[in-house]
Amino acid sequence: MQTVLKGPSSEVIIGPDLPIVMIGERINPTGRKAFSAELQAGDLSRIPRDAQAQADAGARVLDVNVGAASVDEVALLPQAVRLVQDTVDLPVCIDSANPAALEAGLKAARGRALVNSVNGETAKLKAVLPIVAEYGAAVIALCMDDSGIPGTPEARLRVAENILNEAAKLNIKPEDILFDPLVMAISADHTAGAVTLATARLIRQTFGCNMTAGASNVSHGMPEREVLNTVFLTLLAHEGVNAPICNPLTNGLAIRAIDLMLGHDEWGMGYIRAYRALAKA
Amino acid sequence: MQTVLKGPSSEVIIGPDLPIVMIGERINPTGRKAFSAELQAGDLSRIPRDAQAQADAGARVLDVNVGAASVDEVALLPQAVRLVQDTVDLPVCIDSANPAALEAGLKAARGRALVNSVNGETAKLKAVLPIVAEYGAAVIALCMDDSGIPGTPEARLRVAENILNEAAKLNIKPEDILFDPLVMAISADHTAGAVTLATARLIRQTFGCNMTAGASNVSHGMPEREVLNTVFLTLLAHEGVNAPICNPLTNGLAIRAIDLMLGHDEWGMGYIRAYRALAKA
Repeated sequence: MQTVLKGPSSEVIIGPDLPIVMIGERINPTGRKAFSAELQAGDLSRIPRDAQAQADAGARVLDVNVGAASVDEVALLPQAVRLVQDTVDLPVCIDSANPAALEAGLKAARGRALVNSVNGETAKLKAVLPIVAEYGAAVIALCMDDSGIPGTPEARLRVAENILNEAAKLNIKPEDILFDPLVMAISADHTAGAVTLATARLIRQTFGCNMTAGASNVSHGMPEREVLNTVFLTLLAHEGVNAPICNPLTNGLAIRAIDLMLGHDEWGMGYIRAYRALAKA
Repeated sequence: MQTVLKGPSSEVIIGPDLPIVMIGERINPTGRKAFSAELQAGDLSRIPRDAQAQADAGARVLDVNVGAASVDEVALLPQAVRLVQDTVDLPVCIDSANPAALEAGLKAARGRALVNSVNGETAKLKAVLPIVAEYGAAVIALCMDDSGIPGTPEARLRVAENILNEAAKLNIKPEDILFDPLVMAISADHTAGAVTLATARLIRQTFGCNMTAGASNVSHGMPEREVLNTVFLTLLAHEGVNAPICNPLTNGLAIRAIDLMLGHDEWGMGYIRAYRALAKA
């Protein structure tokens, strides 16, 4: 099952046995005070730099989120999307909790975008899926619903199944849904990693869908986060998470190492290129 | 299936769903010029330091190899084994290509040792298995034979099966054999990692045996070896390699990160302890 995304004149394919596709997470004000302040002042000058740096580090899709407090996302998100695609020829992942902003972002996007995100909540399904269908986009689907985040892999799988069914009613195909098995902090619950991995395995086995995940959530509150993130990205990839949302500047080499160790990097050229790019950065 | 090793008054259990058991690889002159020269001069003073440092970093079994050029291993290996167990209360992994040295080492070892190693070669099976049986030890078995190292996982599995059959004739049980699926350098063959992982998966599924591996071999000749080693140790662990031979001072935190992410480290205490120990070292 292959998910096809497009930039202005480029194509990215996400699928089993293909190299992992990194979705660059940096264009997002969460936890970035300076960027938040800039967005609040209407200053988008950091975006082309962040886009280029992530592309240079191997990102093949760029998440675009301008959701800082008091920002008018409906006005700003399309501007940010255009800036990103004026800088790099990559598909965008349009990221907002506001459906009107998602639609404005989709209007501005060239190629075929990814929408971040829908989940199993009734209101979310109603608001987001029709937009995804109208613009022929792909969509990230979080395995949570009106009851919150299920504690067991089986319950998360049922949420995924419900989303698939609702999507099918609008002719959104399984290959255009990237499930997110949901990554929680291991510092709060030492079984959090195992639950996410078991969810990913079930989704892969049951539906064969491609998956994304915000892997670095797992290490919040722990020391030496990079080791934990590398290990968890590796385990996620082994369970079928082939399009993680991550920071390519810190996780890029690990991602190429995973491809290499799984036999998906002929002659190790992807790893060597990533090593050279990151050594220069 | 559980493999039980013993130190002078300690016990180590290797098994699925248990924390990974690190076999410390440092007491070995291969690639260590100063240590080789010391061994050639009969100077064993580095051994207690290396034993203690590895134990402090989380090793639970210590490999002991004194095979430098012109060293009389039959005389030196038992001395080294005694020194290690006078320093730390851990099982030893007696490592030599010379069966007489293995036997001398086993005589000196307290508790229940691991022998490193047998393989499927006719001469090796004949020389090593009777010693393992006589001393009631456990043994590492490499998946290679008189024809060399098989290129396919299926052929390596057949070697493992042959070793199991030969061992059974001497009443050596499957739980007392740690298979090594064999790790080759990815720089020479980009499918090397995938072949090792597939071999491990087959051995786990077919025989249920515990496994070891010299994971760091995978990264010879590549830059940023630690990232590659961390990723490969993670994938190996996920395929059932639960007693890797490694350097606990460089790989210890990654090993505890793997346990944590797989849900085998309650409250993350093993990871936090390793972080503190390595921060002090």
